[in-house]
Amino acid sequence: MARPHAPRGQGRARVIDAALELFAEHGVSGTSLQMIADHLGVTKAAVYYQFHAKEDIVLAVVESAFDEMRGTIADAEAAASADDATGVALAGLVDLIIGHRQVMASVSRDPELGRILESHEAFNSLTSRLGELLLGPVPDTRRRVAASVIGGLAHAAADPLLADIDDAVLREQLLHLGTLLLSSGSPTRTKATS
Amino acid sequence: MARPHAPRGQGRARVIDAALELFAEHGVSGTSLQMIADHLGVTKAAVYYQFHAKEDIVLAVVESAFDEMRGTIADAEAAASADDATGVALAGLVDLIIGHRQVMASVSRDPELGRILESHEAFNSLTSRLGELLLGPVPDTRRRVAASVIGGLAHAAADPLLADIDDAVLREQLLHLGTLLLSSGSPTRTKATS
Repeated sequence: MARPHAPRGQGRARVIDAALELFAEHGVSGTSLQMIADHLGVTKAAVYYQFHAKEDIVLAVVESAFDEMRGTIADAEAAASADDATGVALAGLVDLIIGHRQVMASVSRDPELGRILESHEAFNSLTSRLGELLLGPVPDTRRRVAASVIGGLAHAAADPLLADIDDAVLREQLLHLGTLLLSSGSPTRTKATS
Repeated sequence: MARPHAPRGQGRARVIDAALELFAEHGVSGTSLQMIADHLGVTKAAVYYQFHAKEDIVLAVVESAFDEMRGTIADAEAAASADDATGVALAGLVDLIIGHRQVMASVSRDPELGRILESHEAFNSLTSRLGELLLGPVPDTRRRVAASVIGGLAHAAADPLLADIDDAVLREQLLHLGTLLLSSGSPTRTKATS
């Protein structure tokens, strides 16, 4: 093989990038280690050296998302008020959605990725904690519905009709819409009209 | 068979109801005509008399949704202004989501249902026309993102965490949030602050 040996960390990153591209196109279930190897122009053994199963690649991808979620939750829990905590949680969620736009597009189309995630205890406890922060301490019905619709912001990040909108602009719009949705659900945050 | 023969229309409705229950629990791909027959306490031949394939049941379910969408689109196109048209389209979409809450929960979890729908020309043309009505005649970026997030309202209808909220209350909340999202995306509709 003419290709020079890359350090292991770099090799992992290349496999993950290739896997993400293929997941987006073929779904997780439609992607094999062999396809990843072909995409990279290496042998299947070279991919296997980095990851023994496709599920391990998926978990490696989401592990970085988990770390971001943990950071957001810690920041939100350190906030001075419940409203501040909600704002931090929302901003962190939007950053996460934007930073993983390609994965979001895969997740929304891909039941296998969803199943792998939902069977992962860390994922479930992080998303429910993030959900609680978005709900606030005493959620009424309006706020509960708004927080659920916020969960649908990922729909926009995954929407092929919005693929031409760059990350920074989409982040700003989603943050604006998310803030609007949450303040609508929290009567105490309604601005006084004088 | 002791069971009296029901008229064909009624038999179809019973098969559809049973299929929806099973789709919600097992997904479309996890549901067979035999399971539908067992659920109804009839023979598979009796189900087959109504529907020759599972896909036909899915299409029968969505056909009623298609009819509603056609009605909404006709009403919106007859509206006096683009803003009115958007309002009619949004209200129709929310009614559709609420009226098919159980199906929405299935769609969001079920790639096969999604595939059957997306391969259906009528579905694609109806959803894009509805999308255009939500966007309005000259959509800017804000409006495009808002219209995409609106597409995520179905997420709330399918959210098991909101299962305790009754249809009328959820309809009102989704309509409120949808209106809020769309007016935020249309600067001309911003109220003057004096």
